[in-house]
Amino acid sequence: MDTTLEIGKKLVSLCKQGHWLEAVDTLYSPDIVSIEAVEMAPGRKRMEGIKAVREKTLRFLKDVDIHSCAVTGPWPHGDRFIVGFTLDHAQKNGPMAGKRVTIEEAALYTVKDGKIVKEEFFYQMPG
Amino acid sequence: MDTTLEIGKKLVSLCKQGHWLEAVDTLYSPDIVSIEAVEMAPGRKRMEGIKAVREKTLRFLKDVDIHSCAVTGPWPHGDRFIVGFTLDHAQKNGPMAGKRVTIEEAALYTVKDGKIVKEEFFYQMPG
Repeated sequence: MDTTLEIGKKLVSLCKQGHWLEAVDTLYSPDIVSIEAVEMAPGRKRMEGIKAVREKTLRFLKDVDIHSCAVTGPWPHGDRFIVGFTLDHAQKNGPMAGKRVTIEEAALYTVKDGKIVKEEFFYQMPG
Repeated sequence: MDTTLEIGKKLVSLCKQGHWLEAVDTLYSPDIVSIEAVEMAPGRKRMEGIKAVREKTLRFLKDVDIHSCAVTGPWPHGDRFIVGFTLDHAQKNGPMAGKRVTIEEAALYTVKDGKIVKEEFFYQMPG
């Protein structure tokens, strides 16, 4: 069974390559809980279960153009690890369409039985 | 009372200026708990109370030469925030004396009633 550090390294490697959905499918528990810092859309602050998190990932990939994503870490501590993301992206649709925005955030992951069971995103409210 | 984000910004500002002890004295709760990722020395993985954490800080400042310390963040999420540190430093004494080492780590802080009540350091085992 992979250690926390090994899972962290795999996650960072997949995210660096833009393989977001593969990361979810291979590293996440069926019971994953995903929690945003801010409720960007109603009912989307906290998601539970691999189905909801896959849909969230697919929606993200459908909604934005990713120009680049720098990924740092992982930094482990017991059964958790932190990863940093600097994401240069633009919405494909809506009033902000095409406007490139760079966001910085940190994510805290919790591992149990060799799978990621919780992801929590840390960032400031945009704007 | 300061918000989590305001406390995070103050901490980052003080750390950037190298005012480590001032950060402890002004932002930390008397009941602070400080937890390292790794037990570097016996009994020093977890410290409780402002006295122990002040002593830890003073010992760190006495033991190392800090050449530079880049501080990133804060990234908030509810009552917690994450800060990144890249520390270029050297031990003053012992077998590694004078050898410059750069370590990267992330720290997760928990805030309660306007004070930092927990700090947890995330990093890989050196070496």
